[in-house]
Amino acid sequence: MRILIIGANGTIGRAVSAELQARHEIITAGRNSGELRVNMADLASVQAMYAAAGKLDAVVSTAGNVHFGALAEFTPEQYQIGLQDKLLGQVNLVLAGQHLLNDGGSFTLTSGILSEEPIVYGSGASMANAALEGFVRSAAIELPRGLRINVVSPTVLTESLPSYGPYFRGFESAPAARVALAYSKSVEGANSGKVYKVQ
Amino acid sequence: MRILIIGANGTIGRAVSAELQARHEIITAGRNSGELRVNMADLASVQAMYAAAGKLDAVVSTAGNVHFGALAEFTPEQYQIGLQDKLLGQVNLVLAGQHLLNDGGSFTLTSGILSEEPIVYGSGASMANAALEGFVRSAAIELPRGLRINVVSPTVLTESLPSYGPYFRGFESAPAARVALAYSKSVEGANSGKVYKVQ
Repeated sequence: MRILIIGANGTIGRAVSAELQARHEIITAGRNSGELRVNMADLASVQAMYAAAGKLDAVVSTAGNVHFGALAEFTPEQYQIGLQDKLLGQVNLVLAGQHLLNDGGSFTLTSGILSEEPIVYGSGASMANAALEGFVRSAAIELPRGLRINVVSPTVLTESLPSYGPYFRGFESAPAARVALAYSKSVEGANSGKVYKVQ
Repeated sequence: MRILIIGANGTIGRAVSAELQARHEIITAGRNSGELRVNMADLASVQAMYAAAGKLDAVVSTAGNVHFGALAEFTPEQYQIGLQDKLLGQVNLVLAGQHLLNDGGSFTLTSGILSEEPIVYGSGASMANAALEGFVRSAAIELPRGLRINVVSPTVLTESLPSYGPYFRGFESAPAARVALAYSKSVEGANSGKVYKVQ
C-alpha cells in the first residue's frame, strides 16, 4: 500500500512509520517536517498536500493540537484551538481525501483517552477527542467506493510521562510502539467506524 | 429552585418547562423568544443574559443549531455551524455560569442520539453531540462549589417525525414529555458528568 502519514515526526507518527514501513510505501507529512508540509486546519493546504502526494491507499493522521487549561479560565478562543486544529484539521483530511483515495482505501485518525476519562485541565482535549469519535462513526456510513475510516484513542504515552505524567496519575501508559499496532489494525484490517482504544 | 431554560420555546424546551414549572420558578430565554434573548454563540450575549436573569440554581439548555448535509459535499464552514452554535454556545453557558450559579447548582445541556448512532447527512450533528458529551464528562470534574453538569441525549422526537422521520427510519422516537423527564432527573437529582440517554 501507499500510505501518507501526517504528523510522521511525532512520537506516535514515528512508531507508526516504523511499524508500517517494512510492508508498505510511506510518505511523510507534517507542519514543520516530513516530505510534504501541511497546515491541516487549512483545507486548501490539505488539498495541495494530496496533489503532491499522488495516489494513496491509506491516510494516517497522528497530528493535532489542543489547548490545556483550567475550566474556570478557559475561553471560547482556547477551545477553538482544538476544534480548528485537532478536530477540523483531521476532518479536512477526510473531506478532501474522500474524493482522491484509491477504492477501498482508509483514513485512520487520532483522538485520545480524555474523550472518556477526563483529567483536570483537559476539557479542550475531551471535547475535541470525543468530537472526532462522533465524526468517525458518522463518516464511516457515508464514505464511497469502499473507503473506510477509524480512529485510534491512545492512553498517555510512556514516552510522554516525563512531561505529562503528573497530569495522568494512575493512568496506565502505553509505549508508542504498542499504540502503533492499533494503526496497523485500522490500515491493514477491514473495519470501519471503529474507535480503537489503546489503554 | 430558580431555573433558566434556554431554548424554552422549542419542542423540548416547552416540555421541560411544563415538567418543572409546577415545582420551580422558570425563567425562559431564547434567540427569538422568551423573557430573555440570547445568542449563545456570543459569550458577551450569554454574560448579559445571566446579568439580567439574576441568581440561579439551574441552567437548562435545549438550544443549538447544526448543519445537515452529505459528507461528500460538507465544508469546514458547515461543520462550524454546529461547533459554534450547538457546541460552543452551550459551552459558553457553562464558562460564564460557573462563576454565577448558586452553590450546588446545575447545568443540563442537550446532545442527541447521533453522537452514537449516525444517520446519513448527520456528520455535523454526530460531531457536535459527541463533543458536548466529552466536554460534560470533563467539566464535571472541574466545576467548583458543588456545581453539577449533565447532558441529555434524546432520540428523534415523536413530534418531529412528520419533518425528520424519513432520515430516522427504524429509530424509536420519544415524545418530548418523556424526554423532559431526563432534564428533571438531571436538575432535581444529584449526579454529575452523566449522559442521560432517552431512546
